[in-house]
Amino acid sequence: MDRNKALHILKEHLPEKRYIHTLGVLDTALELAKLYHCDEKKTELAAIFHDYAKYRPEDELKAIILEQNFPKDLLSFHSELWHAPAGAYLVEKELGIKDEDIFRAIYYHTTGRPNMSLIEKIIFIADYIEPGRKFPGVDEVRALARINLDGAILQASRNTISYLIQKNASIYPDTIHTYNYYLMKKEESSIHD
Amino acid sequence: MDRNKALHILKEHLPEKRYIHTLGVLDTALELAKLYHCDEKKTELAAIFHDYAKYRPEDELKAIILEQNFPKDLLSFHSELWHAPAGAYLVEKELGIKDEDIFRAIYYHTTGRPNMSLIEKIIFIADYIEPGRKFPGVDEVRALARINLDGAILQASRNTISYLIQKNASIYPDTIHTYNYYLMKKEESSIHD
Repeated sequence: MDRNKALHILKEHLPEKRYIHTLGVLDTALELAKLYHCDEKKTELAAIFHDYAKYRPEDELKAIILEQNFPKDLLSFHSELWHAPAGAYLVEKELGIKDEDIFRAIYYHTTGRPNMSLIEKIIFIADYIEPGRKFPGVDEVRALARINLDGAILQASRNTISYLIQKNASIYPDTIHTYNYYLMKKEESSIHD
Repeated sequence: MDRNKALHILKEHLPEKRYIHTLGVLDTALELAKLYHCDEKKTELAAIFHDYAKYRPEDELKAIILEQNFPKDLLSFHSELWHAPAGAYLVEKELGIKDEDIFRAIYYHTTGRPNMSLIEKIIFIADYIEPGRKFPGVDEVRALARINLDGAILQASRNTISYLIQKNASIYPDTIHTYNYYLMKKEESSIHD
């Protein structure tokens, strides 16, 4: 699917503000894909459709999680987490984009996970640092993303945990697994330096 | 086993400073046991022996975790976490204290877990608030412990996660599970209030 067609489809599914966010994610993801030599076509599609399911009714997202045997514990956590796995499924089913790399990049874009593929890392980080994002610590992650993608993931997940703890919100375990994994990876690499 | 005999045995296993910490945990745990109507004899033994394995060599703790099929992922985390499950095992094996409630109270005293029994909660919190503990936020948990044990557990695990994140340390998933569980329990109870 070409970029214009993909954006045209997407636009029908998102309000203006979220569409502009997606354009920011797209620019950032393509910049990172060039920098780190990731497949640009796949990155483009994953970026465009990462929030495809964001404005679906909660009931629809919930039903997909149950029917697809996605982890049931998602349903005990904030519904904000549901659009990512449900979106991965809907992009495949409704748009016919059948590609495991794109599927996983969309599926894990909110929480990350240990040992992400390059495209998963790029979508996760592009979503966090796209130019429209303004929150404490984002500039540090922006700078890190261009020199050390794993370091940026560690810092982004660290910021997310801090933010959730401060506002007394629950923390989905994948966010902690991501943080622990990239922290231990950093510690191991500094031992071997 | 009576209190004096238990303390006499314990003293051989801990340096002075940790022994004094244990006496603080014992006093606090017994106070909470009276307040919340927990079995005082079991609370006494769990408190006295909660750090029984704290000064065993790391290799011994590691071997116990492997031999007893305790979760292997403990070994990827800080060795500070190992004395609790290994201690639960050693108290049973070496001292002949065979009691599931005491076993679990010792096993989970560092991380907590969702849906703890009353004695588990008391040992977890007494270890956190005993009079020798001085760190930011401890007074708030001390006050909470006397009026709302679950609220104290939530605040203690919240403080622990904040502290670990600030010092760039890994966070064992059980600590997050404890936090999420007692947070959701609080939210549910406030819905029903």
